[in-house]
Amino acid sequence: MKVTDIGEFGLIAHIIEIINKRSCKTSSAWSNLFIGAGDDAAAWSTGRSMQLATTDMMVEGVHFNLKYTGWYDLGWKSIASNISDIAAMGGVPLYALVSLALPGDIEVKNITSLYEGMLEIANKYEVVISGGNVSSSKQVIISVTLLGRTTGNKLLTRTSSRRGDYVAITGYPGLSAAGYEILRKKPAVRPNAKKIMIDAHLRPVPRVHEAKILLKNGVRSAIDTSDGLIADLTRICEASRVSAAIYESNIPLHPFLDEYFKETSLEFALTGGEDYELLFTADKVTIDGIKKRVNCPVTIIGEITSGTPGVVKIFDEQGESVNFENKGWDHYRSHL
Amino acid sequence: MKVTDIGEFGLIAHIIEIINKRSCKTSSAWSNLFIGAGDDAAAWSTGRSMQLATTDMMVEGVHFNLKYTGWYDLGWKSIASNISDIAAMGGVPLYALVSLALPGDIEVKNITSLYEGMLEIANKYEVVISGGNVSSSKQVIISVTLLGRTTGNKLLTRTSSRRGDYVAITGYPGLSAAGYEILRKKPAVRPNAKKIMIDAHLRPVPRVHEAKILLKNGVRSAIDTSDGLIADLTRICEASRVSAAIYESNIPLHPFLDEYFKETSLEFALTGGEDYELLFTADKVTIDGIKKRVNCPVTIIGEITSGTPGVVKIFDEQGESVNFENKGWDHYRSHL
Repeated sequence: MKVTDIGEFGLIAHIIEIINKRSCKTSSAWSNLFIGAGDDAAAWSTGRSMQLATTDMMVEGVHFNLKYTGWYDLGWKSIASNISDIAAMGGVPLYALVSLALPGDIEVKNITSLYEGMLEIANKYEVVISGGNVSSSKQVIISVTLLGRTTGNKLLTRTSSRRGDYVAITGYPGLSAAGYEILRKKPAVRPNAKKIMIDAHLRPVPRVHEAKILLKNGVRSAIDTSDGLIADLTRICEASRVSAAIYESNIPLHPFLDEYFKETSLEFALTGGEDYELLFTADKVTIDGIKKRVNCPVTIIGEITSGTPGVVKIFDEQGESVNFENKGWDHYRSHL
Repeated sequence: MKVTDIGEFGLIAHIIEIINKRSCKTSSAWSNLFIGAGDDAAAWSTGRSMQLATTDMMVEGVHFNLKYTGWYDLGWKSIASNISDIAAMGGVPLYALVSLALPGDIEVKNITSLYEGMLEIANKYEVVISGGNVSSSKQVIISVTLLGRTTGNKLLTRTSSRRGDYVAITGYPGLSAAGYEILRKKPAVRPNAKKIMIDAHLRPVPRVHEAKILLKNGVRSAIDTSDGLIADLTRICEASRVSAAIYESNIPLHPFLDEYFKETSLEFALTGGEDYELLFTADKVTIDGIKKRVNCPVTIIGEITSGTPGVVKIFDEQGESVNFENKGWDHYRSHL
């Protein structure tokens, strides 16, 4: 059996199984581990607070194409996606380690741009790049590990969603997919709309501040939408052993999606990925409280139900269940 | 100017320069950072102790060749080399994050072996694999980040060597290079000698325990020999702004190196790399005290001098200065 046969998520499940089966569980490292493999970030106790650690790899031709992505943007996004993972745990991002593998014929000035992009967003969130290494390779590969901490002992995890919770999302999902479509197909789009959609794809802004407000106001279950709304909600449902129902008519579609991508807007919003919005669940009072405290849209799009654990159902305006073929990005089955 | 023009170490220096120039230095993350990019691991204060973080990437065809390296060994080595970096700071390794990029046509059972190898050594040192991710790619790439801590506020760094210190090394440098030569050229070597040299290359054992003794007994400057003795000592000399003199006749050559690789034994020991021994400097009384407390050979091989900062000189038995062309491994200039 080959890796393509089980796909990205099958491979992850297989790896987690080996780790759980084979790890020696008598160490203090194990007993201090609060969240291991399988959430946005790992978390372990250091007494009064928790350390958070997350890692992400961007591979040329898989996660990005240098035809559409400049080096500066690539640097920005590689740090932003990791900051988003720390945010999705309700944490404060602190230190980044950057491993770089790249062919020797790349211009040094491109690497300068790459790090300038990394440092612009790192500085914005007071993150320090504190280490890393370089190596040669056939493709450009950027592996970032980001370390952070919680301010207390509370976290946003994937395991705390309960039946009766509502499902909510910040911002407008699908803008990143629209930006990618513009980069690839170059349709006629007026400049300000174009900039907003392309920026959503190339320069995502992680919801660090909003996540802090979520945590402070009682939310316990959240994920960032990196793989796509349905795929990420499925992660929450699997981890929390619950089901979810999403109502198409509730999905907040940005006016530009409606204007330029009418036919695919829902598909972009539900399966596009790389939006780095916060997808979370809580009771209605909690969500209403949050709406008043954040500066971005917060929309209730569905609810947690008692259906088959791990299953997300989508309903159209007629109340019919809809099937979305492509439920998110699989790095072994999807192609740029 | 291309990356190959400046090489691996030129690129690292360039990156560190950008980071230092562009980082916002008013954050608390920056002021708590004790060691940033440029040592075996980053270190930052969390009050009573220090957090340590290191990252290393292994690229197929650059760091390993699947013709000579089994998946289990590859897993072992990817974790071992990172544990060694934490050890070389005098720290306790705790949590590993593993990012994996690999072609989809790899057998899943090989990935099982890879993680079994990782977990064998992780368990040995009570390290927990607490996260990671997977992606597809053209080459197999394993990126490991290892997090650890110090037990107090003392560290082994590269910056603390002083003129008058002696230079010492644990174990027998060059065994790993000999093991690699055996794997590649298959010379006739009797089984027990073969096993010791090949194991030195494929299953290095990081000197965690010895490093703790070094730190406890007053050593402050150390590095692990991953790039080669001369190259790694050069790192210490650059960071400490000192020079060093090494005496060929003092280099501890393992009897098997003498027996099977007489002609190249010194080259292996001085430039081979991937030995993961501890190279450190201290006064004679300190080194003598350490010799009594560790279970491995500790040999004085030279001294820190007042010569040109960053320069390591090698002297033969006649007291003549010797030039070693290949001073270590450059991932853009050396080839497997």
